[in-house]
Amino acid sequence: MVGIVVGSLSDREVVAPATAVLDEFGVPWEWRVISAHRSPEALAEYARTAEERGLRALIAAAGGAAHLPGVLAAQTILPVVGIPVADRNLGGLDALPSIAQMPPGIPVATVGIDGARNAALLAVAILALGDAALAARSRTWRRSQAEGVAEADRRLREELASR
Amino acid sequence: MVGIVVGSLSDREVVAPATAVLDEFGVPWEWRVISAHRSPEALAEYARTAEERGLRALIAAAGGAAHLPGVLAAQTILPVVGIPVADRNLGGLDALPSIAQMPPGIPVATVGIDGARNAALLAVAILALGDAALAARSRTWRRSQAEGVAEADRRLREELASR
Amino acid sequence: MVGIVVGSLSDREVVAPATAVLDEFGVPWEWRVISAHRSPEALAEYARTAEERGLRALIAAAGGAAHLPGVLAAQTILPVVGIPVADRNLGGLDALPSIAQMPPGIPVATVGIDGARNAALLAVAILALGDAALAARSRTWRRSQAEGVAEADRRLREELASR
Amino acid sequence: MVGIVVGSLSDREVVAPATAVLDEFGVPWEWRVISAHRSPEALAEYARTAEERGLRALIAAAGGAAHLPGVLAAQTILPVVGIPVADRNLGGLDALPSIAQMPPGIPVATVGIDGARNAALLAVAILALGDAALAARSRTWRRSQAEGVAEADRRLREELASR
Amino acid sequence: MVGIVVGSLSDREVVAPATAVLDEFGVPWEWRVISAHRSPEALAEYARTAEERGLRALIAAAGGAAHLPGVLAAQTILPVVGIPVADRNLGGLDALPSIAQMPPGIPVATVGIDGARNAALLAVAILALGDAALAARSRTWRRSQAEGVAEADRRLREELASR
Amino acid sequence: MVGIVVGSLSDREVVAPATAVLDEFGVPWEWRVISAHRSPEALAEYARTAEERGLRALIAAAGGAAHLPGVLAAQTILPVVGIPVADRNLGGLDALPSIAQMPPGIPVATVGIDGARNAALLAVAILALGDAALAARSRTWRRSQAEGVAEADRRLREELASR
Amino acid sequence: MVGIVVGSLSDREVVAPATAVLDEFGVPWEWRVISAHRSPEALAEYARTAEERGLRALIAAAGGAAHLPGVLAAQTILPVVGIPVADRNLGGLDALPSIAQMPPGIPVATVGIDGARNAALLAVAILALGDAALAARSRTWRRSQAEGVAEADRRLREELASR
Amino acid sequence: MVGIVVGSLSDREVVAPATAVLDEFGVPWEWRVISAHRSPEALAEYARTAEERGLRALIAAAGGAAHLPGVLAAQTILPVVGIPVADRNLGGLDALPSIAQMPPGIPVATVGIDGARNAALLAVAILALGDAALAARSRTWRRSQAEGVAEADRRLREELASR
Repeated sequence: MVGIVVGSLSDREVVAPATAVLDEFGVPWEWRVISAHRSPEALAEYARTAEERGLRALIAAAGGAAHLPGVLAAQTILPVVGIPVADRNLGGLDALPSIAQMPPGIPVATVGIDGARNAALLAVAILALGDAALAARSRTWRRSQAEGVAEADRRLREELASR
Repeated sequence: MVGIVVGSLSDREVVAPATAVLDEFGVPWEWRVISAHRSPEALAEYARTAEERGLRALIAAAGGAAHLPGVLAAQTILPVVGIPVADRNLGGLDALPSIAQMPPGIPVATVGIDGARNAALLAVAILALGDAALAARSRTWRRSQAEGVAEADRRLREELASR
Repeated sequence: MVGIVVGSLSDREVVAPATAVLDEFGVPWEWRVISAHRSPEALAEYARTAEERGLRALIAAAGGAAHLPGVLAAQTILPVVGIPVADRNLGGLDALPSIAQMPPGIPVATVGIDGARNAALLAVAILALGDAALAARSRTWRRSQAEGVAEADRRLREELASR
Repeated sequence: MVGIVVGSLSDREVVAPATAVLDEFGVPWEWRVISAHRSPEALAEYARTAEERGLRALIAAAGGAAHLPGVLAAQTILPVVGIPVADRNLGGLDALPSIAQMPPGIPVATVGIDGARNAALLAVAILALGDAALAARSRTWRRSQAEGVAEADRRLREELASR
Repeated sequence: MVGIVVGSLSDREVVAPATAVLDEFGVPWEWRVISAHRSPEALAEYARTAEERGLRALIAAAGGAAHLPGVLAAQTILPVVGIPVADRNLGGLDALPSIAQMPPGIPVATVGIDGARNAALLAVAILALGDAALAARSRTWRRSQAEGVAEADRRLREELASR
Repeated sequence: MVGIVVGSLSDREVVAPATAVLDEFGVPWEWRVISAHRSPEALAEYARTAEERGLRALIAAAGGAAHLPGVLAAQTILPVVGIPVADRNLGGLDALPSIAQMPPGIPVATVGIDGARNAALLAVAILALGDAALAARSRTWRRSQAEGVAEADRRLREELASR
Repeated sequence: MVGIVVGSLSDREVVAPATAVLDEFGVPWEWRVISAHRSPEALAEYARTAEERGLRALIAAAGGAAHLPGVLAAQTILPVVGIPVADRNLGGLDALPSIAQMPPGIPVATVGIDGARNAALLAVAILALGDAALAARSRTWRRSQAEGVAEADRRLREELASR
Repeated sequence: MVGIVVGSLSDREVVAPATAVLDEFGVPWEWRVISAHRSPEALAEYARTAEERGLRALIAAAGGAAHLPGVLAAQTILPVVGIPVADRNLGGLDALPSIAQMPPGIPVATVGIDGARNAALLAVAILALGDAALAARSRTWRRSQAEGVAEADRRLREELASR
């Protein structure tokens, strides 16, 4: 199971595509609202019990100072994927380094700004190492991506040809 | 008393001027090495007991993702002053927003990059609200600053005049 | 009492949440329009008399070159909280360092871009050092924040469970 | 086994700490020089055969346009960890988004600039999911990190006490 | 003939002006959807056969990590023009260096953010070296540009004069 | 007389406030559309004859690479005021240094992004050095600015008092 | 006469080239150390009496928050030229917008980072409007610049020819 | 023949690798010092006669405001390759957009910061379109690049194997 954490429901829309991807791959998930700053004790509790509750990877999204992924990572040995969330002002220019530039010792696997889909795909890649069926689905999914691009290519060419 | 916290001794040189300023104002301080990421439990313990141990303000310095000041602030109602520390690569361009851009609810009083002196002066300004003697010293210190500038002005003018 | 200063009424909407927070904590405030550049004499007058008129902390908001907080801080020993205001073009990327990067000697307690709520909370934290009732309200408020997050967590989990 | 890839030997010094960490954890690794741009066919070959040759995670370091991690990730379902390398001019301000901002579909687990140690630790966290002994070593290592911070704390306090 | 490549149809609107310019100059073009990350084999195939299929220059547009132009350039000796595409968050601040900062050995001719017209004009300038008629059209086009500016100047002056 | 130059009519709205300010001060102006890149000969002609045609200062606005002010300045000894114009993508983050960072030898007096009003006020300040009536109007205008701020202050205070 | 102001002698080396240029043009200058923050009253006094003491233009240099030029400009109608000074960390990326992004009403003529020579040349261009001899020297100086470039061109070509 | 232009000899070291690459490919070149700002007439003359003097591509390097490539491009239909040069302060963060962000109508083929080698290789790629021998050399050179990477790979592996 993958644990998804946001610090407030304002990040809900940005994170939702992660659950869609996990559903697509048949990976179970839970989604929690816990704040690194407003509910630090609940977060510590969540992080420290994550492994024993059967979680295998965590995804955390945050904007601005964006401490959530790093604070989670500090309290579990599970891999933590961090999603920098764009705010209206700096567009994630603050959140990206706030998540990626962790000090030596506690890594966060940072994906792109508002990159919820890629966060889920990274979690899938991690879980697929120990799950042959998931690995097989990943290979199939990759092929379907390539086919999707090829299909878009065909459509564009046909449309251009018929001008 | 002011509590100063760094996450590693590599930030020691940058933070040292803060203690010099506090000494100059006769404000007692303690300086601790506690990491938001490598020793989160010790940090929580420190933050939660800070008030009862008589601390009146906290100063925390951090570079990169720079979560230390915010994580401290999340666990105490004492004012927390954050010093963004420049690293070799981004010069603090990452640490400044990582400290300042806290979510609504948990503020950090951010000073400039490598701004240890100003962090201490901000702590002094805060403590001086409840300490008339310290306020008086602050006023004197401000005047001596102005005199220092005036003295530099006189020296430059004399030097230029004697060319 | 907390003094709030903006340089023009165009920053009014951004700053308004600060007054809401101060009202919530029962901290009296005054709000003034005085410009560091267009009415420098009025600003000097305001800063220099702030202490004697009973103000205990100042909050100043500014965008762009954003000199207001620093110019205020230069003329009072009261703690000054600076709010960088986002403009349409750079989103506060200019105002944040313009406020935070003060020279050694005159600190400004900088909060995040458009961070009026946190500016007020920082003022509350400072005043609470000398006001046990306010400190108690701060502790209560922190708990209610944590409960708010827990409540959001419950709602999300229920909603997801009922899918 | 973890596969480490750099595009040129000029990134060797930056990446070396990753091998030290992997050795410390007893995780076998191989280190290759293959360029996304100068030897794209060799890279494709390497990426496509990585899984069957028993690799479980890839680490790729690159500066500037920094395409290496993403190009690797495009051709394998293994998790790819990307290390942005600072160059003399922009200090990694270019490489960090060049690696993190991957399009939806192909994630790269980005760590901080010059973050070779964290890249290795992330690989360890990923491998530990399927390796109880490695997970145990990770927990021990985390504790020794916390002890290292506590030890630095003790030393600083003693030194300050003896002034 | 000029080959235009995008990684997804979401970049279609941004790139369309390039085809308009090429049509205006009578330069034939083809437009393909091939992704550096989702269909890397198709891209390699396209790049490696570009020259023999009679292409003389390539134009590739990409946002974010923006690897497409560089990955194309790695697999052909044809000149590759790269268009950084602005996304909603960073406005191309990521894509511009991701395309321009190629390592020594594989250049990409980078134009401005969303600069499809200039990408096409650069391709025209390149092709005109071996095509006297195209060079003549380029000179004419330059003159008409100057006349367009002069005409705008006249209109503005007349309008201002008649106020 | 002040000469205003834009490279295309797309910058018209941004620049219009400059003419309003000049009108307010009774300073005559002309406004021209001449491009550093599309009509370089016309620009050279304009710059070289500016002084003899009685112009006393030039204002040039440009976005992006924003060469117009510098190219003008290279061909006249008149003071040239440069206005960086925000575009949709980078908000002027490119145009500001493109105008300000001129090499030693040819200065451009750069104002803020979209700063047409300040560009005109700077031209007024320059012309006022040789025009006592204009200097007097400037002093009056400054006072009226201060009064405007004071009036806004009064209005806000009254409104707040009547809550 | 041109008045040069720095806030501290640490900016002395950066500003010195301005005096060399003014000497070269025979323009008298004075150089003062007055701080916007540490000696605000002295600065106000200086700015307000600048005109009556015969100054015709002001040059102010500052790094970081860099308020000095704007605070000066707020208290005089003389044209103020601002020099953003690079610090060790951000290289002037903070000071450039801190000086240029002044609010409407009070312009500062900003030159490039560490651009003392251009600041002086801009002052010369301004003073030359009312001083025909200075204008003549400016024209001569421009020609000598062009000759200097031509001379460098000749030297390079000779050297390359003799390889 | 390729024409290389710098605005001052201070950019000489950065540009020299371009001539080495051109020599390696047997492409003749000339190198000139002409400034967009200090010798604009000489630059116009150079650009306008470039084609008739047999030049086939231009390379121009510039730092800071970096107008040289764009100003050249405005006055010739030859393809112009622009090299952003890093200065001490901003590391080319200013020069890169100053060169790339040209307005529609006049493209510059921008390479990476200090990217002289790639500028030359881009010129080679352009010239190779009309020169089969040069195209052949380019293909050979690409293969030797790949072999160089493979050789570095072999050396690293041997060294690691012998630990």
